[in-house]
Amino acid sequence: MIDLKDIHSPKDIKNLTTGELTTLSGELRKVLLDKLAAHGGHVGPNLGVVEAAVALHYVFNAPEDKIVFDVSHQSYVHKMLTGRIGAFLDPKHYNDVTGYTCPRESDYDLFEIGHTSTSISLATGLAKARDLKGEKYNVVAFIGDASLGGGEALEGLDYAPELGTNFIVVLNDNQMSIAENHGALYDHLTALRESKGTSENNIFKALGYDYIYVRDGNDVASLVKAYEKAKDADHAVLIHINTMKGNGFAPAEANKERFHYSAPFSETDGALLNVSSQKSYTDIFTEHMLKRMGADGNVVTLTAGTPGAIGFTPDKRHIAGKQFVDVGICEQDAVAMAAGLAKGGAKPVFGVMATFVQRAYDQLSHDVSINCLHVTVVDFGGGVFGIPDMTHLGFFDISMISNIPGIKFLAPATKEEYVAMIDYALDSCDGPVVVRTPGGGVVSTDVPVNTDFNRYDIVEQGADVAIIAEGPFLQTAKQAAGILRGKGINPTVINPRILSSVDSETLDGLRNYRKVITVEDGIVDGGFGQKVAAYFGSSPVQVICLGLKKEFLDRYNVGEVLKANSLTPEQIAALAE
Amino acid sequence: MIDLKDIHSPKDIKNLTTGELTTLSGELRKVLLDKLAAHGGHVGPNLGVVEAAVALHYVFNAPEDKIVFDVSHQSYVHKMLTGRIGAFLDPKHYNDVTGYTCPRESDYDLFEIGHTSTSISLATGLAKARDLKGEKYNVVAFIGDASLGGGEALEGLDYAPELGTNFIVVLNDNQMSIAENHGALYDHLTALRESKGTSENNIFKALGYDYIYVRDGNDVASLVKAYEKAKDADHAVLIHINTMKGNGFAPAEANKERFHYSAPFSETDGALLNVSSQKSYTDIFTEHMLKRMGADGNVVTLTAGTPGAIGFTPDKRHIAGKQFVDVGICEQDAVAMAAGLAKGGAKPVFGVMATFVQRAYDQLSHDVSINCLHVTVVDFGGGVFGIPDMTHLGFFDISMISNIPGIKFLAPATKEEYVAMIDYALDSCDGPVVVRTPGGGVVSTDVPVNTDFNRYDIVEQGADVAIIAEGPFLQTAKQAAGILRGKGINPTVINPRILSSVDSETLDGLRNYRKVITVEDGIVDGGFGQKVAAYFGSSPVQVICLGLKKEFLDRYNVGEVLKANSLTPEQIAALAE
Repeated sequence: MIDLKDIHSPKDIKNLTTGELTTLSGELRKVLLDKLAAHGGHVGPNLGVVEAAVALHYVFNAPEDKIVFDVSHQSYVHKMLTGRIGAFLDPKHYNDVTGYTCPRESDYDLFEIGHTSTSISLATGLAKARDLKGEKYNVVAFIGDASLGGGEALEGLDYAPELGTNFIVVLNDNQMSIAENHGALYDHLTALRESKGTSENNIFKALGYDYIYVRDGNDVASLVKAYEKAKDADHAVLIHINTMKGNGFAPAEANKERFHYSAPFSETDGALLNVSSQKSYTDIFTEHMLKRMGADGNVVTLTAGTPGAIGFTPDKRHIAGKQFVDVGICEQDAVAMAAGLAKGGAKPVFGVMATFVQRAYDQLSHDVSINCLHVTVVDFGGGVFGIPDMTHLGFFDISMISNIPGIKFLAPATKEEYVAMIDYALDSCDGPVVVRTPGGGVVSTDVPVNTDFNRYDIVEQGADVAIIAEGPFLQTAKQAAGILRGKGINPTVINPRILSSVDSETLDGLRNYRKVITVEDGIVDGGFGQKVAAYFGSSPVQVICLGLKKEFLDRYNVGEVLKANSLTPEQIAALAE
Repeated sequence: MIDLKDIHSPKDIKNLTTGELTTLSGELRKVLLDKLAAHGGHVGPNLGVVEAAVALHYVFNAPEDKIVFDVSHQSYVHKMLTGRIGAFLDPKHYNDVTGYTCPRESDYDLFEIGHTSTSISLATGLAKARDLKGEKYNVVAFIGDASLGGGEALEGLDYAPELGTNFIVVLNDNQMSIAENHGALYDHLTALRESKGTSENNIFKALGYDYIYVRDGNDVASLVKAYEKAKDADHAVLIHINTMKGNGFAPAEANKERFHYSAPFSETDGALLNVSSQKSYTDIFTEHMLKRMGADGNVVTLTAGTPGAIGFTPDKRHIAGKQFVDVGICEQDAVAMAAGLAKGGAKPVFGVMATFVQRAYDQLSHDVSINCLHVTVVDFGGGVFGIPDMTHLGFFDISMISNIPGIKFLAPATKEEYVAMIDYALDSCDGPVVVRTPGGGVVSTDVPVNTDFNRYDIVEQGADVAIIAEGPFLQTAKQAAGILRGKGINPTVINPRILSSVDSETLDGLRNYRKVITVEDGIVDGGFGQKVAAYFGSSPVQVICLGLKKEFLDRYNVGEVLKANSLTPEQIAALAE
């Protein structure tokens, strides 16, 4: 047997017996749970695939054999076995690894991947490159835990057998998505499980895959046997493994959705160590949508597989009943279905993370906007205060969405504005509206909301210098204005609210100003500030556009990023002088 | 029997016998062929579905029953039966209808749809809205002819049965995509056809659909019977109809790819009436890629189901052999596969229409750019000179792609620059590059190409006023400069070439200029001009950003659009004065 700290590469487990691999799995699971409890992370997905990852590295020879993890939030055990066990054993090194595969960390990791459903298509490229070069190795796509139903995955699943070459898909079927599964495919997986893989109308066989079913996907011996059968195949093979999400930690087995991802928790009972009693924008959204759905049976809230991220925990989904739709992690389908709902006279509201809304660009443009359909999208986690992981950044949405014709892109600065904008989208519009949930803490105001959202809102009237700041940066702008007033400068502070067009009337009122500063919670490129700069292009008004640099950051410190982009009150005030 | 000109709505065919419906189909086919030959259009798809559309309107009661056509380039017969036969009978009225379903034309048309794979998801929204309102009608998605393999369609196909309600999919299986089919799903359809629908592992049954197979999808009686069986079902039904693309016109039956879409042709032998002998940018691309692939076995050209649109006709595909990949109409898969190819050490070049590249925004950003992978995309039909149909516009790509971090967006102005940029992307870059095929006619120059593509290129050195014009507008700018020189103004003319970043060094050289005009072949919003305007924001240089307004145009006249957006040489010269 081997001591965990002596695992430097998969080679170190190659000589273990099946019994020892099982023991090893238990030890890895314990270490994993300790880290997850203290540090937070994807609990259920990783506890469920301990044996699957151990067997994978026992049978295949990475990095020569190429293993692509889908979503890659289920790659923690893979990391433990590929030279990074220190980042799990030693709390001081917990942050040495990201929560996803990361080629910057290790040659065993092929792609930075955080969005779902990518592995099969990526792997087809690896397989094709291998064959063009006349090389020989196994290409394995490890998919599941929410990923299979996404369009990109289905496109890849469809194409891969056409390659007619070594190609192995491991389908980790833990009977769950992030929440419960949706879509007929998952009913089919249930039928396959219940029949121990013998159910008729096998979809994978229909697509030409050799199909192998592993009844106990948490049993190392069964997995090793199945992988060995598929290894070195000269065609496409799909191994369907039946695993248990959260395996080995009773609270995670009992409440799979809650433990898909968790902040630090007690190993005794799973309780969160830090519970915030503060109401978040997500709470406000959910509460408001439940009210709106209760009052009007035609209002529908949609999610693409992330109900929790938009506040619709199981209890709230139960209240919403048939007015809540989860299509699985299928943003394209969600947006197109919203288009159909609108055409049919319903009032759809699609709640989605800013990082994922980009998966439906074509549907927003072609299916919704060209058709002028009354679809409301509320996006979450946008801006610099969102998820700081490179694969989940949320500060590209303004630039991406606000340049699609016909879509109103609204950015509230307070909770009152947020709710008013959702109501405005539902009640006063007849075309597509995107409302961006503000980042940072909830801001409240007792100033009545000006609901003419096609116009900017002058929050503080001054002269000579104007700061036009959207979303959470309105507060920053107010602080900057305070600093400036201390220096005898009395700036005008403006909340633009609508980022997809300029309010020419308000801007024309600034034509005799010396300087206009725009501040946005997104990249400057393609953002609203550049529209303002172009508007003032042939006037003497100086315009300075502030926002984020166009770059992919990773696990960044918000304060540092704000400073690097001149987004602190002091820096804005200095620029405004 | 009814005279064609007396068909005002589907009601007018409800009392016909099956025999009369067959006769009617023949008459409609003849009229359709006459129009297609004289006018051009989607030949094969529509000739193939004459009977399917006639039977559809005989059995279902549109517009109460909702029929959603996928791609909707196969909706011509539907248009003939729903009040628009005049646009097919009378050459003077040929242009009264668009080539796609169009709610602006008729209540029988539910969506403006030109991109593939949308119908099922859109229809799920209609079905859900119907059920929320407690209404009763049939919802039918008519899909096929290239559409089924796309991710959006597969997501919808997966989700629809979960609704547990009336939902009918008609799968028009004409054994073709635009070119030949790709993907394992189509092999499965072949197995189903060959077994007359009885093949095991039926994928549709696996997903919970009632499955009905129609062996002769060009036989009205069989179709009526199948549709009637599905009508008013309380669950999901899929009717698989086996049709012949191009049915009834021998040249189109014999050469299905050539007749998917055709310009005007002879009804005798199918020959094109006007053949251009001029080399197009597409020819240049194909020729160059064949050269590059011939010289390097690792160079791969990919298409997502539109090989002809990028010049890869069957003969060229044959030459390219295994270095040419068609994944079907699956842009997501194509881009992700390109990412995998790059990771595996190959050199992928994805050729794609500008209007379709937006279907892979997430893959360009997340799969390719975050991973800094050496993927080249060459987009076609971008800008105002591209396809003028509302659903196929190509002037949003600069704004969409050039704001994704890490992607170099290059826009050549001449064929020499075009080829040099493709070589630069393949040989001198190690990250993602998008090369935009210029719109308009091919421009050639004997001035050597400056291959430092991270820098703007000063084409004519003047003073005081600069015109920075990209792509086809470089020629316009030169003409404007000529006009200005006649008035004693000597402008500097600059070809920016790279649109994803500003060349600060060149721009700094203009700091003492009075005026800078940017001209781009795309929408101004989010484009390169606004980056220039922001760069000069706090300087006294006046900047005027020219380009297209952010709007969806339809079947526009290029000259009028140029004029409306101040893009003629005279208008640019006047603004520069």
